[in-house]
Amino acid sequence: MSFAQASALRRIDETTWRGEIPPGWDILGNANGGLLLGVAARSGALASDRPDPVTITGHFLAPAPAGPITIETAVLKEGRRFATVRSEIYSDEGRRLLAVLGSYGDLAPGNAPERVAALPPDLPPADECIQVEPSATLPPPFMGRVDLRLHPDDVPSGRVGGDGQIQLRGWFRWRDREPLDTVGLIVAADAFPPTAFSADLPVGWVPTLELTTHVRERPAPDDWLRCSFTTRFITGGFIEEDGELWAESGRLIAQSRQLALVSQGG
Amino acid sequence: MSFAQASALRRIDETTWRGEIPPGWDILGNANGGLLLGVAARSGALASDRPDPVTITGHFLAPAPAGPITIETAVLKEGRRFATVRSEIYSDEGRRLLAVLGSYGDLAPGNAPERVAALPPDLPPADECIQVEPSATLPPPFMGRVDLRLHPDDVPSGRVGGDGQIQLRGWFRWRDREPLDTVGLIVAADAFPPTAFSADLPVGWVPTLELTTHVRERPAPDDWLRCSFTTRFITGGFIEEDGELWAESGRLIAQSRQLALVSQGG
Repeated sequence: MSFAQASALRRIDETTWRGEIPPGWDILGNANGGLLLGVAARSGALASDRPDPVTITGHFLAPAPAGPITIETAVLKEGRRFATVRSEIYSDEGRRLLAVLGSYGDLAPGNAPERVAALPPDLPPADECIQVEPSATLPPPFMGRVDLRLHPDDVPSGRVGGDGQIQLRGWFRWRDREPLDTVGLIVAADAFPPTAFSADLPVGWVPTLELTTHVRERPAPDDWLRCSFTTRFITGGFIEEDGELWAESGRLIAQSRQLALVSQGG
Repeated sequence: MSFAQASALRRIDETTWRGEIPPGWDILGNANGGLLLGVAARSGALASDRPDPVTITGHFLAPAPAGPITIETAVLKEGRRFATVRSEIYSDEGRRLLAVLGSYGDLAPGNAPERVAALPPDLPPADECIQVEPSATLPPPFMGRVDLRLHPDDVPSGRVGGDGQIQLRGWFRWRDREPLDTVGLIVAADAFPPTAFSADLPVGWVPTLELTTHVRERPAPDDWLRCSFTTRFITGGFIEEDGELWAESGRLIAQSRQLALVSQGG
């Protein structure tokens, strides 16, 4: 099942949408957080009739097993360039799973001033990287939906550099070669293994509290995305993970940042 | 008028709060965005009965002149450690000014694993820095509320380094020496001049579309905050500004990131 199918929504009334978290998009039985945020992004794009999420924030409220969902949307602003939409995802038991605030627009190429003071992550070609398989090392079956190719130095979940930063670099595309759009990007920003697992700390589970992604432009639909995820601060019981998603052409496509909880444990 | 007074809210019913954006907290007639987000953080902390915003995101919908406001809150989750609250600020004309999603908790010192791979920004002592005065160069009167001391190398709005990054470093405290709490931190993360003005680009106004702040721990109430704001990506019509707010002790207090629009112009 493609991401387009997995995130398909049916309009019930002005503000209500129905969808279904399909089996096969979970990690250990619960929907991948990025998938859930991607479905919310779909609802915001549909509700506002704008193609592209520009900045979207999700607060993860409860684990989401496979099954039908309802999304309540409210269009908070309809501006010339952007619309702001609130989306809340509910299970059929009425449990609130995810609260989302996003602004949506049209990211067709424009003509604004540019200055970029960073380089895309250094990565060998995809076929020289390590493909993440849905296997014992990383939880199936979500990994069967995405095609992740990790930098050999960063396997399995990041490398601690000389500066102490943890970095995980790799390529992303849909495993079924579905064209990638800006809604799919929202999933890509949360598809890689958590850097926390490389931190050489007594860290157990790292549930995401909040994830924000900024989309700068549309990816070329058939490109690989060149991705890096960096952690600098594990403190106060929290860890941040900063993502950059670049086009093969070397242009920045999106930035993300998530805040997760660092719980003690094996 | 102190920030505590400027952000004071009166409860009208279970979900409704009244406040007032006071004169003296504006930039060219409209409320500073950070102040507005700080008032929303106050509403979320009160509605959830948790002292500290932990991660808070605001989407700025309309300029907010001084005057009475109404905040509608909805507590979306009440967990053991965190509560998630939606806050929306309205003017008395019924105009939606700001939409906010935040998670709140108790950031009393804990006992979690720590690893920090970054240093606080290098700053001369505050009295050797350049105090920002409410004057011709920076818009009064908001600058009369905050005490900003900029690194002499970064005056007036940041310095473009050899790597092309724009960085603005400085100290923050309230000008009236009001003790700083985690709600006030939300204002601090948006109190400095925009780095975009140093970009040597034909950039006019840079309205903030979205601002997210993560608070890691409580500041010592009488400390200066050691702050840096960095811009790496001006592309696609957007600019990001990444903030770090550190304690005098050298501990990370908060991180912020905002996405603003880069419009062509004078």
